[in-house]
Amino acid sequence: MKKIALLGSTGSIGTQTLDIVRHHPERFTITALTAGSNTELVVAQAKEFKPSIVSMATKDLADRVSPHLPAGTRVVYGDEGLIEAASETDADTVVTAIMGSRGLPATLAAIEEGKAIGLANKETLVTAGHIVMARAQEKNVPIIPIDSEHSAIYQCLNGEPMRGVRGITLTASGGSFRDRTRGELEGVTVAEALSHPNWSMGAKITIDSATMVNKGLEVIEAHWLFDLAYDQINVLIHPESIIHSYVEFVDHSIVAQLGMPDMRVPIQYALTYPERHTTPTERLDLAAIGKLHFREMDFERYPCLRMAFDCGRLGRSAPAVYNAANEIAVDRFLRGEIAFLDIERVLETVLERHEVSEVNDLESIAEADNWARRLAASV
Amino acid sequence: MKKIALLGSTGSIGTQTLDIVRHHPERFTITALTAGSNTELVVAQAKEFKPSIVSMATKDLADRVSPHLPAGTRVVYGDEGLIEAASETDADTVVTAIMGSRGLPATLAAIEEGKAIGLANKETLVTAGHIVMARAQEKNVPIIPIDSEHSAIYQCLNGEPMRGVRGITLTASGGSFRDRTRGELEGVTVAEALSHPNWSMGAKITIDSATMVNKGLEVIEAHWLFDLAYDQINVLIHPESIIHSYVEFVDHSIVAQLGMPDMRVPIQYALTYPERHTTPTERLDLAAIGKLHFREMDFERYPCLRMAFDCGRLGRSAPAVYNAANEIAVDRFLRGEIAFLDIERVLETVLERHEVSEVNDLESIAEADNWARRLAASV
Repeated sequence: MKKIALLGSTGSIGTQTLDIVRHHPERFTITALTAGSNTELVVAQAKEFKPSIVSMATKDLADRVSPHLPAGTRVVYGDEGLIEAASETDADTVVTAIMGSRGLPATLAAIEEGKAIGLANKETLVTAGHIVMARAQEKNVPIIPIDSEHSAIYQCLNGEPMRGVRGITLTASGGSFRDRTRGELEGVTVAEALSHPNWSMGAKITIDSATMVNKGLEVIEAHWLFDLAYDQINVLIHPESIIHSYVEFVDHSIVAQLGMPDMRVPIQYALTYPERHTTPTERLDLAAIGKLHFREMDFERYPCLRMAFDCGRLGRSAPAVYNAANEIAVDRFLRGEIAFLDIERVLETVLERHEVSEVNDLESIAEADNWARRLAASV
Repeated sequence: MKKIALLGSTGSIGTQTLDIVRHHPERFTITALTAGSNTELVVAQAKEFKPSIVSMATKDLADRVSPHLPAGTRVVYGDEGLIEAASETDADTVVTAIMGSRGLPATLAAIEEGKAIGLANKETLVTAGHIVMARAQEKNVPIIPIDSEHSAIYQCLNGEPMRGVRGITLTASGGSFRDRTRGELEGVTVAEALSHPNWSMGAKITIDSATMVNKGLEVIEAHWLFDLAYDQINVLIHPESIIHSYVEFVDHSIVAQLGMPDMRVPIQYALTYPERHTTPTERLDLAAIGKLHFREMDFERYPCLRMAFDCGRLGRSAPAVYNAANEIAVDRFLRGEIAFLDIERVLETVLERHEVSEVNDLESIAEADNWARRLAASV
């Protein structure tokens, strides 16, 4: 029986993780759930899965859910509650399906307790890859990616010596605006941006797909997860999202992972690795699909991806600033405050004004992050 | 330094194996070469690679090459010479790139001596899979496939527990006549049949691709190599031959191996497994290719493939009879004696008249094989 602490249980990855747990009650149990403000859903989840801890964003929200929790479920809140949920139950695996840089201290706390990490929080490696991977290695804790692209690479590398790897290619659907020119991106609406062609995801990540920031964050994550140089990481446009990513070896053999776009496959793989079990997902039928398409990534069309490579190569505070500025810019777009193309203008301005500095602890990362947020809110 | 005995050095796989050896002189050396009747090429190869044994098809051919061999190279001949080349040098790996059922006793002799097998001889597993796999297991000898499809599956399975495998799919280009209807196959010429769209191969295997017998033999091979039931083996038409084959796992994740169609990649993989090294091959550029196509296998269009599944399921003498009857039928077609569609009619007639029997040793396999050849020559 695998015991799971699930950080971010009411989001897209969180609810799909619970779907997997529900499908294999003999295999998985939940020790902790954490949520932001969706009190109704977290109460229902707590009643179904009976965790020992539920953590909410604030004391007020914690007080609101408290009377409805099953006996034996304790409620905590805030950043400290999140850390408690991540590290203080008897979970052997922590799924970090929470969004934003708040996931970082909780993930580190779980690593300190020797818990395996099912990583769905991009910010963890983007902002603090050097700290997190070093601690995971010291504590001998596996970090198994849940992102479909990184899970694909993880599956393709399984059992292969890294010295045989020439490079990896992350596939990108191109997002909701992949068939529009840059000119046609002027004045697109929030609703248009939110309709992703292949994946059903949260609002932030759907926008990040359209700007290709999501792929940029994945590139930086892949650098840390697989210890690859940025020159070894490629991005290819593949509109159908069927080939989720692939590894090229030095002999020019390529091993790729394919499937229908359904996050429950990589989620479950992270929970059962190295074993595999049935999933409640649709099988891929290549004959029914008929054709797969590929085209070169266009860095002029997607300048945010170019900026991600630049920030990754710069290292130190640059990726944290890239990520934070983007969070604010997307938030401003979703609130109707700026236009779609302003997201990249905000990013560009913040990065131009940033002086890259060493970030050897969570405080200095938070400092760079806060600086970027303040600036991104005002440009 | 890996020492290689190469059975069938003047054929397509043989010369490409020597290409790989030439590319990595610090890694590989040749202990034995065997050839049929191409005396000129085998002499040149012997001068370049200085094997301790060269084996020719007949005493006459052996006498003809003998004066031209380098000092220290001994010449032998016939079935016994082939066995000697396979088992009596200090090779640690034997590449069985020879065609036809003559490869079987030599392969078994190599297994008895504990030599790893780089398997490119289809008949070995098709006719005697039960005997060969059992002996290899007893002697703890790895059988590493060189066929591109089986090498693909081998690469995809690397490190994965077999209990997680739902099935495999072998891709098929469809061969030289894939865009013709059955009606349009009446009266096709030998020259038309010999022009394969993707792979440059020998005459026999090119015809076998057009009839889909080649895929049928691969299905039976895969059954033995990977210990899969026939229901777990699928065939998919994929005209570009870029995805060489794939594995579907029980979680509906698919892992596929891709590359430009170049046999030197699987050949070298078999020689360096589990390591990978550079190859003198072209890299795959999916963006340049742009599209990959897939369509359902049509068993009405390709009845020889249906017959292969039937024979595989029947087991015992049936696969050997299928293989032998096809060898004769293809030979008759290449000599202009029968039409292209007669190949399947010959196969069908021989299989109809065959009474399946146990084949527990090489003698009974040879008997079934001979019976099928005699009949196939006359119907």
